[in-house]
Amino acid sequence: MKQSYFDTAEFAARRTQVKSAMAKAGLDLLICADPANMDYLTGFKGWSFYVPQCVLLHAEDEHPTWIGRGQDGAAARLTTTLPDDHILPYPDDYVQNRAKHPMHFVADYVRKRGWQRARIGLEMDAYYFSGRAADTIRAALPDARFSDCDHLVNWVRLVKSEAELRYIREAAVLVTGAMRVGIDGIRPDRRQCDVVAEIYQAQIRGTPQFGGDYSAICPLLPSGEKASTPHLTWSDEPLVRGEPTIIELAGSRLGYHCPMARTVFLGTPPAKLAKTSDVVIEGLHAALAAAKPGALAEEVEAAWRGTVAKHGVRKESRIGYPFGLAYPPDWGEHTVSFRPGDKTELRANMTFHCIPGIWEDGWGFEVSAAFVVTPAGGKPFYDFPESLTVKP
Amino acid sequence: MKQSYFDTAEFAARRTQVKSAMAKAGLDLLICADPANMDYLTGFKGWSFYVPQCVLLHAEDEHPTWIGRGQDGAAARLTTTLPDDHILPYPDDYVQNRAKHPMHFVADYVRKRGWQRARIGLEMDAYYFSGRAADTIRAALPDARFSDCDHLVNWVRLVKSEAELRYIREAAVLVTGAMRVGIDGIRPDRRQCDVVAEIYQAQIRGTPQFGGDYSAICPLLPSGEKASTPHLTWSDEPLVRGEPTIIELAGSRLGYHCPMARTVFLGTPPAKLAKTSDVVIEGLHAALAAAKPGALAEEVEAAWRGTVAKHGVRKESRIGYPFGLAYPPDWGEHTVSFRPGDKTELRANMTFHCIPGIWEDGWGFEVSAAFVVTPAGGKPFYDFPESLTVKP
Repeated sequence: MKQSYFDTAEFAARRTQVKSAMAKAGLDLLICADPANMDYLTGFKGWSFYVPQCVLLHAEDEHPTWIGRGQDGAAARLTTTLPDDHILPYPDDYVQNRAKHPMHFVADYVRKRGWQRARIGLEMDAYYFSGRAADTIRAALPDARFSDCDHLVNWVRLVKSEAELRYIREAAVLVTGAMRVGIDGIRPDRRQCDVVAEIYQAQIRGTPQFGGDYSAICPLLPSGEKASTPHLTWSDEPLVRGEPTIIELAGSRLGYHCPMARTVFLGTPPAKLAKTSDVVIEGLHAALAAAKPGALAEEVEAAWRGTVAKHGVRKESRIGYPFGLAYPPDWGEHTVSFRPGDKTELRANMTFHCIPGIWEDGWGFEVSAAFVVTPAGGKPFYDFPESLTVKP
Repeated sequence: MKQSYFDTAEFAARRTQVKSAMAKAGLDLLICADPANMDYLTGFKGWSFYVPQCVLLHAEDEHPTWIGRGQDGAAARLTTTLPDDHILPYPDDYVQNRAKHPMHFVADYVRKRGWQRARIGLEMDAYYFSGRAADTIRAALPDARFSDCDHLVNWVRLVKSEAELRYIREAAVLVTGAMRVGIDGIRPDRRQCDVVAEIYQAQIRGTPQFGGDYSAICPLLPSGEKASTPHLTWSDEPLVRGEPTIIELAGSRLGYHCPMARTVFLGTPPAKLAKTSDVVIEGLHAALAAAKPGALAEEVEAAWRGTVAKHGVRKESRIGYPFGLAYPPDWGEHTVSFRPGDKTELRANMTFHCIPGIWEDGWGFEVSAAFVVTPAGGKPFYDFPESLTVKP
């Protein structure tokens, strides 16, 4: 039984767009190792990206080709509509073997198809395309002309289809439920892990209508002085009165994410934190208002910065990035950044996570909005209280 | 507050072993981007491996150096005991920027320390060391002599210390609890996501004594025909009478994993599946008995193969790999494989996951043992029923 969650026309449109971008970039063949890009082009799912695998898309081939580990070939047959001769499992002794590499197998296939002199785009900054993978394929195909495709498929993914937006809206329901459980669960003397256990349960159980999938980043729950940095996870220590806790998490519906960050304080927050939280929320709203089709990415950041600077709040790091279909370890799409110098022009139906976190010595505050670009500005996927939650 | 979970002597011993392996490999400087290796050498924790980061270990420098994103510098100060001048956060505009790469920042530091002519080992097959990262550092340091360190730190990690074994034993308690919840939860007409929600909760809540951390692979729960391939995850479809469900998951205690796989059948299993499960368990026990210090990795596989071949069971893929400290997307250590040709000699206190899964058209069976090598053979970390669980 094929389990694709999009119809044939959706995949056809994606491949047409990607082939058009390939033509502009002067590429005959694209080798995608990013699992989100593999999924985007074929529907392929599975936690098999821990071994080398890829999807090849050639300008003149109707179908993409999936190449992966032997035991995962059945997953390709079950989750994609690729014809059998475009599903190529490699023998298991290619796995973690000093003597050979799955990219040798890929190169053999490229030669078999007569593509060995092609202009080939590689995803040089994808997580699961290692230095050795890059060196191996380049050495094995000396007559090909290789280049970094510079996140070509990621750029195509930037504008979401209606079908994709539907799944992101469902993910928004998931993240809203999980965040509610998280905030409710934050109480003095409770173990952090007990709160996170409940968050996970809510993320995955979902609603009676649909369940949730694993998210590309685990729930982040830095508490106390750990809230001074964004990427620490929970411990089994108790939550402490007088300390902040940040919750950042996403709902995932069939790999489509919707992220959210909020902050809780147990007890009376320091004046500095309370003040900062108000300013940050005002700045976030300014960024949302600026996020209209035609605006540049840097202008969204400038709207934020202009607002918060008046109150003395400064932030060095970028305040947002696009999100959507994602696999571990990141739900960001690695293309646009809301920061000075990014001249990307926003278009309708792009989706961004605007997360202007402030991390200072010993404390931090995060609030965010996952939104879609509309003519009226950035429209959040959820309506969830943004203020610092203060609990006794 | 420093939150290291190992004492100074443990880290000193690790660094001494790694430096000794570097000397044998002819390396002056090691650049580790594998988050498990970064943690092993420094204690650094955090879900920040989605941006480039690394630990540098030079043969003549007392301390390793952490280099990572600005906002994660506080995480390095909180989770490691590195001196401040060995924690180097890079500015945020290095993140996902076509014009520059964090490896330029790393190269600048290497030059500043006078190491630009060093023999430098790179982790060329680490997930988070991309082709672009490899190309960038090599181009930026033209006078250095680069080589692939071939999982040098992973090889050192193969033999576990007593302190590490203690955490793995705690992870065994976590996985046992979560697997119990999973098997109990498998019932006809329940949604798969509801079972997985309970598994996650058990994994993270843990016991009154200690909680669990995120595991490097999400709980895998292929059901029905999806059980014919190992790496598919759950859906929100109901479980169906007359179908098998495989559960593979791990407990994680502070990043130290203990994995387990089991299989459940709702209803009366086909004779072929019941027979296969008995044979596979017999083969697994033969492999465990062979896993003594001095045995070669391929001999462990041969013990399995010799046993199951008598019953007509064949398996192409490897049957096991080492495990321990791990980050997404894999809890395997990428060194030894239990398969023909692997001549690695087993030593006491190595830890392996022996998982001889069988996947056929339309069904599959998995059972596994996570064990430590002892003079009496492989000793599993848990005592959990291995047979196919048959439920009405």
